[in-house]
Formats: sequence, structure tokens, C-alpha cells
Amino acid sequence: MKQNQTIGVIQDGRQHQVATGGAADVLSVLQHSRFTIAAPCGGSGTCGKCLVRVIEGDPTEPCKMEQRLLSAARLAAGMRFACRLVPADAMVIEIPRWHAETRNKATLVAAALENDPLLAKRALSLAPPSIEDQRPDLERVLSASGCATQSLSVRALQSLAQDIRRHGFEVTALIDKEEEDHGRLLAVEPGVTAATLWGVAVDIGTTTVAAYLVDLLSARAIDVYSEINRQAEFGADVVTRITYSQKHGVAPVHQAIVDQVNAMLTSLAKRNAVALSDIYLAAVAGNTTMLHFFSGLDPAAIGVSPFIPVATRALSLAAADLGIRINPYARVVTLPGISGYVGADVVAAIVASRMRERAEVSLLIDIGTNGEIVLGNGDWLAACSTAAGPAFEGAQIRFGVGGVDGAINCFAFYPEDNPDNAEQNTGHVSLTTINSTPASGICGSGMLDIVAVLLQTGAVDETGRLLRQDELPQSVPSAIRTRCIEFESSPAFLVAEADQTRDGEAIYLTEHDVRELQLAKAAIAAGIDTLLADAQVQVSDVATVYLAGGFGSYMNPESALAVGLIPQQVRGRIEVLGNAAGIGTVMSITSRTVSRQCNHIAQNVRYIELSSSPDFQTAYIQHMGFGEL
Amino acid sequence: MKQNQTIGVIQDGRQHQVATGGAADVLSVLQHSRFTIAAPCGGSGTCGKCLVRVIEGDPTEPCKMEQRLLSAARLAAGMRFACRLVPADAMVIEIPRWHAETRNKATLVAAALENDPLLAKRALSLAPPSIEDQRPDLERVLSASGCATQSLSVRALQSLAQDIRRHGFEVTALIDKEEEDHGRLLAVEPGVTAATLWGVAVDIGTTTVAAYLVDLLSARAIDVYSEINRQAEFGADVVTRITYSQKHGVAPVHQAIVDQVNAMLTSLAKRNAVALSDIYLAAVAGNTTMLHFFSGLDPAAIGVSPFIPVATRALSLAAADLGIRINPYARVVTLPGISGYVGADVVAAIVASRMRERAEVSLLIDIGTNGEIVLGNGDWLAACSTAAGPAFEGAQIRFGVGGVDGAINCFAFYPEDNPDNAEQNTGHVSLTTINSTPASGICGSGMLDIVAVLLQTGAVDETGRLLRQDELPQSVPSAIRTRCIEFESSPAFLVAEADQTRDGEAIYLTEHDVRELQLAKAAIAAGIDTLLADAQVQVSDVATVYLAGGFGSYMNPESALAVGLIPQQVRGRIEVLGNAAGIGTVMSITSRTVSRQCNHIAQNVRYIELSSSPDFQTAYIQHMGFGEL
Repeated sequence: MKQNQTIGVIQDGRQHQVATGGAADVLSVLQHSRFTIAAPCGGSGTCGKCLVRVIEGDPTEPCKMEQRLLSAARLAAGMRFACRLVPADAMVIEIPRWHAETRNKATLVAAALENDPLLAKRALSLAPPSIEDQRPDLERVLSASGCATQSLSVRALQSLAQDIRRHGFEVTALIDKEEEDHGRLLAVEPGVTAATLWGVAVDIGTTTVAAYLVDLLSARAIDVYSEINRQAEFGADVVTRITYSQKHGVAPVHQAIVDQVNAMLTSLAKRNAVALSDIYLAAVAGNTTMLHFFSGLDPAAIGVSPFIPVATRALSLAAADLGIRINPYARVVTLPGISGYVGADVVAAIVASRMRERAEVSLLIDIGTNGEIVLGNGDWLAACSTAAGPAFEGAQIRFGVGGVDGAINCFAFYPEDNPDNAEQNTGHVSLTTINSTPASGICGSGMLDIVAVLLQTGAVDETGRLLRQDELPQSVPSAIRTRCIEFESSPAFLVAEADQTRDGEAIYLTEHDVRELQLAKAAIAAGIDTLLADAQVQVSDVATVYLAGGFGSYMNPESALAVGLIPQQVRGRIEVLGNAAGIGTVMSITSRTVSRQCNHIAQNVRYIELSSSPDFQTAYIQHMGFGEL
Repeated sequence: MKQNQTIGVIQDGRQHQVATGGAADVLSVLQHSRFTIAAPCGGSGTCGKCLVRVIEGDPTEPCKMEQRLLSAARLAAGMRFACRLVPADAMVIEIPRWHAETRNKATLVAAALENDPLLAKRALSLAPPSIEDQRPDLERVLSASGCATQSLSVRALQSLAQDIRRHGFEVTALIDKEEEDHGRLLAVEPGVTAATLWGVAVDIGTTTVAAYLVDLLSARAIDVYSEINRQAEFGADVVTRITYSQKHGVAPVHQAIVDQVNAMLTSLAKRNAVALSDIYLAAVAGNTTMLHFFSGLDPAAIGVSPFIPVATRALSLAAADLGIRINPYARVVTLPGISGYVGADVVAAIVASRMRERAEVSLLIDIGTNGEIVLGNGDWLAACSTAAGPAFEGAQIRFGVGGVDGAINCFAFYPEDNPDNAEQNTGHVSLTTINSTPASGICGSGMLDIVAVLLQTGAVDETGRLLRQDELPQSVPSAIRTRCIEFESSPAFLVAEADQTRDGEAIYLTEHDVRELQLAKAAIAAGIDTLLADAQVQVSDVATVYLAGGFGSYMNPESALAVGLIPQQVRGRIEVLGNAAGIGTVMSITSRTVSRQCNHIAQNVRYIELSSSPDFQTAYIQHMGFGEL
């Protein structure tokens, strides 16, 4: 370990020389230098996802896990776990492009929003002072603006005298209307600047961050930009990141998301020709842990029972205090959450679903990296959370990936359409990949499709066992049968042949992967059951099932029904919302009514803690298999 | 002018080597290096008060004003105006001690204060979280503290999780009770810290700054510390300092008072064994310009008609934002003022006088560097301001000084107590100086006494003319007569012989000085008349005259009556309050009732602008002479 050691890092074809700073492994070097690299297990050497390619400099001998998870060909090509690779002099490594890719392009909000934003600007022609009107500058602005109160910063007060005189007593007042109709004076700008008033809504998902640019004058989101959450380098799921922050402090994880939000807002502003200084408000949603990291709050106690957050209520913070580089007087408001595992993103999704505007009971299922479920109507709401998500984002899955280019996202079996040939059924399978590039792995929706096909064709039995080829019943079509082979001495399903894949190596779904999916879908299904039982609602009384979240919005509802992730009885009543959390966050800054609704929801949702619920445990075990309940 | 030039500066017997930084004169060098030096005219070379002694290095030739105002002996001894002295290589100068001296030792508040302070601490034993009680940390603290709202800083939120767990869920809540009975949570400290809760009350006078250390638990001021306002180097009066800030920016003047307050609070805390971090609240009063400089607001528009401040309402600012180094979560509240020239110090003095608790009409006369007058009772109040003060603080007076050591503060004539010898009256004069040191000059109360004696003995006529010895009527006692001589070819009164003085040079009251006093006392007297006329109150109906302020509290009321500064009719109804502004400021943080009274007073006092009042002009001219009206 040398203090002045550097290694070469190639990303997107460009080579950077990066100081190792004495770090013991390449993952730490890359993390400290802010390269985006996915490390779902947080660098513990178990997931095999933080792959880099050693271009120059001899890598150390592969460790046991590398030998187990990487083929001889990939090892020979220099692929290694970054978390196990020791930096060496003259070493040059390459970060494969897939680490920074995402398919989760958040969609733009189409619906017109209520136009009653939290912030307003008012152009004021102040009466010039005279010996008959000696009111102080501040009183002059307050009375002209109609504001009852003010919370000008020290800096704003210090420049107030010059600001109001720069353009002959023509000023524009920035007014916070969140709490009172009369408003609170936030800032005073010289001249007439009332023609622009921008806000941003940011949804910080564990996997994906989406930022919406919102014109607060017309209450319209005009653009959206999303990226993989760069905290991926600290782990795929919230618990891994919490563990990381306990070891290394909250600061690096906090700084990573602040830096990323700043970079995203810069991009978003630039491509819309908006000045960052014209962005006056940032509303931020996300699960409770992500909001903690964003605000720099310590999420340690969320990570262990009884799962206690520092704060879930809405916070209004000075953007400058958080280091968010928009207008210097701008505020950042975090949306309120419900509990440690039912966060502000769920509150925003509830708002976006409009399920509170209905008398009938609806179910909202938001599956991203976690799975949250909400049940209720305009009178009552109950919610719970399950740790179901990571499997759907590729974690713990042998060839699992997130929603990146080449991820197998749809898989289907088509029986031959020849009734005369029913005995000799062969059929064929079909798959699609994100952006139609060579397959790089299996993402959640692909996995759901594959297991649904295997169940429907009989290759997986009701207990979830992936049958060996010689065990398969006669009825299994040959297109499936021929793919039921072995991988690493266990039964596996060949999803994509080597010549279809990015790395030239076949992609399999393993027996273990099916077990992971069973656990995940059982958790969701049991959560639904527990909520229904607690509220004494029959599943037949559920009018609509809203699907939301990074995975929830992309999965094929038919496959979800087939594997029992959602109950059969709701077939035909499913509605896909897309990025409901982002849409709800946009709504919250364009409408004071919605903003208040968010607080009301956060305070009034009945939270069901599943970890201590015997009903949940029973339902979880019942849902583990694939048989009809 | 050399970039690396330094000069030696001796202060209090210690020599410092100070970089000139290219400054053109020694006053600027001293100002930039934070030496305390009085420069009443702001460095324009007209007042002759910023004297330093050149010890080594040839001073330049004396300028015309130096030749006029400094005797040959003093010039020969190396005394020069710092504002006209050009820094030279190997120069060493000495700052005479008197520049840093003050007599205005603010007095401690004796009266018991209402114990209902703006801030409270509450020790809380929080219920530890459990799976049945998953409330977030913040909600746990809020409900235990009884606070309805919170305004924790980003930093406080970021450490909240650790803070409440450091001592096993034993914490102390810091609660702002200003606005609501339930209070607003300001900070959370680990463990039980409720045994200490300190505040400070600071009164920033143009000439003197006084800081009170207040125990907010017992509502008692336990110590007071005062210093000359170091802004003296930027000018003696508010207008000179405003002019300085227009040339050089608000920042240096702002920084000077922030640095001084920090230094004073450090001294005050140290000598009372109080940690600065245990001071949670600073209430600051002062005239409107001083409060502007303290908060860094630009007072430029106060300096010219129509005299518009940036803000006069009470401001609550983060101590950290202002650079006041007390508890990191502490707030600084500035008391509300009434207008550009009737400031928060007057509001505090009104509170301290308790004139609002009376049905009878009272008059409050607060004379520091400015003179403010308030008239009224529990039902109504009216106020005005006169620029009367500077003369009373030594400005424009030939041998005038502030309340420093050696200042002649009392002067009296005692006729011989021998009725048989009435024809041949001789009598004798007597003077005292502050701290009984050799006379250094004449301060306001001394000047008032001298003029009263000259009037009463006939040496000054009713028009204010100081008679030449040969014009004196027979009745003038010889002790006075022999002192009526010439100084610089004009009639003058010998106040102190050369052997009585610090500098070995006689001290005179000049004809011009009497004129200055006439203008000053006429302004006060006319202000009183204008207020009475406006309110249609007879002077005989004034129940009490309260005297306050740096000069108001030290002057001899009999002399004030003799020269007509206050009306004869109130004799016997005069009450001296001392540092009423400081006392009122202490009251404002120990009592929410008083704090609210301050806001009520600031909003409801009828302000009379004298500069545009024809009544005032008439009264001013009438009061210019010394005859009975």
C-alpha cells in the first residue's frame, strides 16, 4: 500500500489517473473518486456484481468467490471483483459500461396539475419613501406583497436596501404560501423577475433517482431526467447502505446523493435553458432511508429492530445548508413518510394514485428495491412494507441485473398453433432485452416471466422445485424441456444461449433463483393478505390494484398473477401507474392541497409492522409455494 | 507607500509591529488592525481627537488643523492626528490610553424580573423505542417536550439520532417559548443539561456597548460589562459612521461590532465561569443605525432624508449566521425599533421606565449620542428624536471628551458664605474628574455645569454670549471673573489650569462651545415642546421626567434645568433611570410579556418627524437663548 500510488481507470473510453489514497481495494478507490459502480452487497465479495476488467498490471489470484462466480474465460479476460482487486503500480482497469446504464426512464407527468403552488412570485412597484411615508424597506415590501410574516435570511436582509433601490423600487417578492394564504416573504429580487419560477421534484429511489423540472407558474412538469442512484456503490439495498454508513460514516453516502442531485439538476437545467438560480424549490421524496441519507440524518436505527427513523415528518431545509446548489434562498422540502420502511415515496404514490378520492377500497403495490403495500379509500388507509424488492432488482440472483441495457425483461413461451400436432408440442420461447442489445442478465420482470412460464408448462412444481430434465412430465413442451439442463451441477433453465449474450456466455435461471423469487413474491402476497385481514376487507371487494415503482410498473401483471405475487381475484382490475412517487412529488409542489394531503396521509395511515405480525408469518409460509391458496 | 511596510504601535505599554498594508494614514492602519482609537469626525482631519504620539521616526510637518488645535508643546512632544500622519519606515507611535477608557459602567439590574423567559429547557426521559412504539426520534422528543413545532437546524437533525442515544434516551430539550405557549423545539442536547440556561442582553450605544449576563432560569442579570464602542474609529456619531460605511462598505463596521460583542461575551463568560456554549440567546438593543451595523444591514438611507431604515421590526437570526460565537443553536434577537432615529434602545427604555403602567403622562428623555424623547402613558405614546447628543459626548467641543478618565464631569461655583462681605464677593470654583485623575477634557455633564454656573453668575448673557472680562457686570464673582480670559484671541472660560491637567495645558470652554451647547439643549427643549403640543399636554401635567442614556443619566438635573434643557416646571419630578435600554433588554428576554410589549410599543408609538415640523423649528429658535420662555 503506497501513499502516492495511482491506477488508471478507463470509463466510457477515457482514461483517468486516480490516486488510490492507500485504499486496500479497487472498489474503495472508485468509490472515493466518485465513479459509478454497482456493488449490491456493499463490497463484501459475495454478489459478484462489481466487476471491472484489468487491462494492464497483473491482477492477484482470483479468490474463491471469483472462481465460483466467474467463468475461466472471463477470468482470463481480466474480469475481477473490484472489491477484491488489490491496486498495484501501473495497473489500468476498465469499468464496464453497464454499471452506469438504466432503463428506468421516469415518465413525464401528462395530467394537468392543480395550479396552486407552494411558492409564488409577485412583482411589486413600491411607493418610494418620503418624509410622510418613512416605513422601513422591509415593511414596505411586506405590505406591498401582502405577506403577514417574513423569514428573510441574514444575507437577504443585508442586501435588501440595495436590492429594492437597484431598479427604482421595482422588486419581485418570493412568497412561501405553504402555511398561510397571505404567505411568508422568503426573498426580494431587484426588478421584475416574476416571469420565471422553477421548482424541481426529486424521487430518490434506492436504485434510481428521477428529477422533474417543474414550471411553478403553469404547474407543469416540463422535463424529467433519471440516473442510477450512485449510492449503488455502497450496496444494492437500504440495509447494506446503512451498514456501510455505520462503518464509514453517513457523510460519504450523504455527499454522494447530494453531488448526484446537483449534477442531475445541472443537466436538467442546462438542457432546458433554465438557470439553476431560477430554481427556488426542491421537493424530495424517497424511501425513509434514502431521505435520511439525502438530509444527512443517521439511518442506523432504521437498520435494526424496532426500525426507528430520526424523522419522518416533512422537513423544510435551506438548500444552501444541504449544499443543493440552486437559488441561494431556495428551500428543500422533504415529503413526509409513514415509518422506517414506508416512506415519503409511498405517500407520494398514494397521492398520485388518487385512491383517497374513491369510496371503494383500492390496493397500491409499489415495488422498487423494497415492496410497500397500501390498502384503503378516502376514509382510511393502512400500509405495510416487505423486504421483497432486492431479488426483483437482480440482487441474490445468479445472472440478475437491474434495469440496464441488455437485461432480459420479457420472456414468453408460444405453443405451436397447430391443434393437430398437440401431442408433439414443441412451441418456441421468445425474449426481449432492454434496448434490444445482447443479453447482459435477467432483471426482475424477466425473471417473473420465466418463472411464470416454467410454472405454466410444468417445469417448476408447486413447491417451487425446478425439475431435472429426466423428471419433467410428458406435457412439458420440447422448447422448454431442452432448456432444462444443469449449471454448476444443479438443475437450471437456459434462458439465453452464449451467442445471444453480451459476454458470450450463456445465461441461466438457477434453482436457487426460483427460491429467491418464491421468498420475494410470498412476502408481497402475505403483506397483501395481512393488510386485507387487518382491515377485514375481502379481496373481492378491492376495486383496483395500482402497480407502481421501478419494478412494479415494469412487470407483466399476467406473470405476477401466475406466480401468485398478486391475488388471482383482482385480474382485470389492475392499473399501472409508472413512477407514481415522482408524479406525486410533482403534484405536491404544484398544489398546496396535495402538500397538505401528504401530511394528512403521513399522520393518518395505519402502519402494520409485519416483522412482529403472527398473521404475516402464517401467510408468508402459505404463499411460499406456487399452489392456489 | 510600500507593500511590506510596518510600523510599531505601542498600546498599554506593549509594542506591536503592524503592517500598513499600503494605507495612506496611521488612522487607517490602526483601524484595519482593530486598535481602539476615537475618531469622532471619521478621519476627516477636523476634530483633532484621534491623537497619537510619534515615538520614533520623523512625523511629517503638522497640517493647518494640527497647528490650530495642538499647542507647540504637544506638537514638539510628537502628538499628531493619526488621520493625517503618514506611515514611515521605522516609525513607532503610541496610542494614548484615554482612547480605550470609559466611565459608563453600566449598572446591574437590581429589580427582580418577571420569570417567564423566552427560552426554556426541559429534561426528558424518553420512552425507549420498541416494536410497539416505532415513533421516529423527532416525534418522540416533540411529544415528550410538549412542543407543537420544531425548527431544528440541519446540523441538529443530523446529530439527533446519536444525541438522544448517548445517555440512554435522557435528553434536554431547548424550547423557544416566544411565540406559543407550547413552544418550538430548537435543539436537543444529550443528557440532562437543564441546570444551566444563560442569555445575554446587549445594548449597543453609539459610544458605549454594555453586555449583561442573564441567568434565564432565575431571570436574574448576574453581571454586566461595558466598553467603548470600537466603531468610534469610524466616527463619533451615526451619520459619520454611515458616511464611512458608504465609502468603505458596511462589512468593516459590521465586523468591528461583531468582533467586539464576541470579545465582550468571552470576557463576561470567563469571569463568571460560564461556558460560551451555555449561552443560548442574545437579545440586542441599540439605536437603529447601531442595530443595522450589528446585523450587517445597510444604513445608508437612514443617513439622508427621509431617513429610511432597512428594518425596525424585531429580527430573530441564527447566532452562527451572524458570527456570534455562543451556543451553535443560539439565536440572536434584535429588539424592535420605532423609526430610523428612535430605535430599539428607546423601546427598551420605555419598558424599563414602566411609564406605560401609569395613567399619568410621563416624559422620558434618553440622551446618549443622540437625544430621544418619549411622552405618554398606558394609553398612548409619542416619540421624537433630535441630533442633540454629539456635543454632550465631546464632539465639536474644543476640549470636549467622552466619559473617559480625567473628564471634568462636575463643575460648581461656591459663593463665600459671608453675608457681610457680599459686595466683595469672590467665591471659589470646584471641579471633579472621572476617577479623580488629572483633567483630560470636558465631558457633557461638566460642560452643562460650567455653562449653568456662567449663566447664574452672569458671565454668559441670555443670548449665550460669553462676555469679555471688561464687559462683565459688577455682580460677577471674582472667582469667575478672573477665569474669563482669552483663548486663541476669543473670549473663553478657564476651566482647569495647566497644572491640573493631564497634558500640562490649560483647559478652556470657548465661546463656540457655548454655542454648541445652546444648539444641543435647544433641540432637546424644542423636541419636548413639540411632543407636548402635538399631544395637547401641558408641561404641568407631566407627572414624572425619566432621564436615561449615557449622558442623560449622568448630567446634574439642576444644571439641565438652569440652562433650559428641561423645563423649569418639572423640578422635583425628575427620576434618573441609568442604563434604561440595557435594563429593558434584560427584561425582554426574562419575560415574554415584556417581549410582546416591546413589539406593541414599536408598532404603536406615534413618531413625530421633527425635521419636517414647523412647530419644532419655531420652538428650536425660541429655545436657542437662555432666557425664560
